[in-house]
Amino acid sequence: MRVLGVDPGLTRCGLGVVEGRPGRAHMIAVGVVRTPRDAEAGQRLAFLESELDTWLGRFQPDVVAIERVFADVNVASVMTTAHATAIALLTAHKRGLPVVFHTPTEVKAAVTGSGRAEKAQVGAMVMRILSLDAVPKPADASDALALAICHLWRGAAEGRLTSLAAAASGARGMRA
Amino acid sequence: MRVLGVDPGLTRCGLGVVEGRPGRAHMIAVGVVRTPRDAEAGQRLAFLESELDTWLGRFQPDVVAIERVFADVNVASVMTTAHATAIALLTAHKRGLPVVFHTPTEVKAAVTGSGRAEKAQVGAMVMRILSLDAVPKPADASDALALAICHLWRGAAEGRLTSLAAAASGARGMRA
Repeated sequence: MRVLGVDPGLTRCGLGVVEGRPGRAHMIAVGVVRTPRDAEAGQRLAFLESELDTWLGRFQPDVVAIERVFADVNVASVMTTAHATAIALLTAHKRGLPVVFHTPTEVKAAVTGSGRAEKAQVGAMVMRILSLDAVPKPADASDALALAICHLWRGAAEGRLTSLAAAASGARGMRA
Repeated sequence: MRVLGVDPGLTRCGLGVVEGRPGRAHMIAVGVVRTPRDAEAGQRLAFLESELDTWLGRFQPDVVAIERVFADVNVASVMTTAHATAIALLTAHKRGLPVVFHTPTEVKAAVTGSGRAEKAQVGAMVMRILSLDAVPKPADASDALALAICHLWRGAAEGRLTSLAAAASGARGMRA
């Protein structure tokens, strides 16, 4: 499975493509889309849409994993993050791709074992899991990779649960 | 000047087109775009995008006025409102149209004279200003019209200030 992780943002939107299966993942691509703070909002969103669509076309992921953002102390930043998320949802939909959301806590827990891990620890684990020479910079890029890894790990776990459920209902003579 | 007012939302997005000048406004169109709550988020956004673009093409506004939404008690609702706002920004940008934001307080003050007016009072004033037989329903439709009226009134006031500033600097021998 190939996953595009998106750490949504307008000033910096982290993108990371990871391919793999449980316990095994390698990086296909990583980057950050930046749009100038002083540009008009619609222009920034249109640029992000175009960049995201280029990534989807170039790397052909099976699924797009986006960080689910909750309210923050900074309302303005939550709004632009939500705007970027909308563009990712729209772009993925137009390519017929499923979108999944994971919370920062889920991502941290998936890559470090603790939902309360520090940012540096997440970066270190991303580097180790993907056998990289250094932690990808900026943090948005590293976070996007962590998100993609999280989906691979969790997707696998959910896949196993589905199989178990199917096997169990099969044992009771029901169709899964 | 012709203004498309947008009361952003995914379940209901109010749209109202008003043409006029200070103290004079008439309604060109009003409506609500609805998308089903149980549909996939990307699909809802794509539908909204397509409907908004149809309105822009059909009614050819000079400017799009969107309600500026702040944090709310309901975080989930703020997020979907922000997603709808992003789609409006994107769609207007692609048509080369300027976008302006007005807060609910500005809208209420513009149409009723009080920034703390009740919803019913806003509806009543929208009906009176536009010489309608009834208050447009649902409230999202009426709010979109109020927003467009607000922009006409305020835009005119800002235009006067600009002219005064130009005249003042002209009197000092400067080019405005």
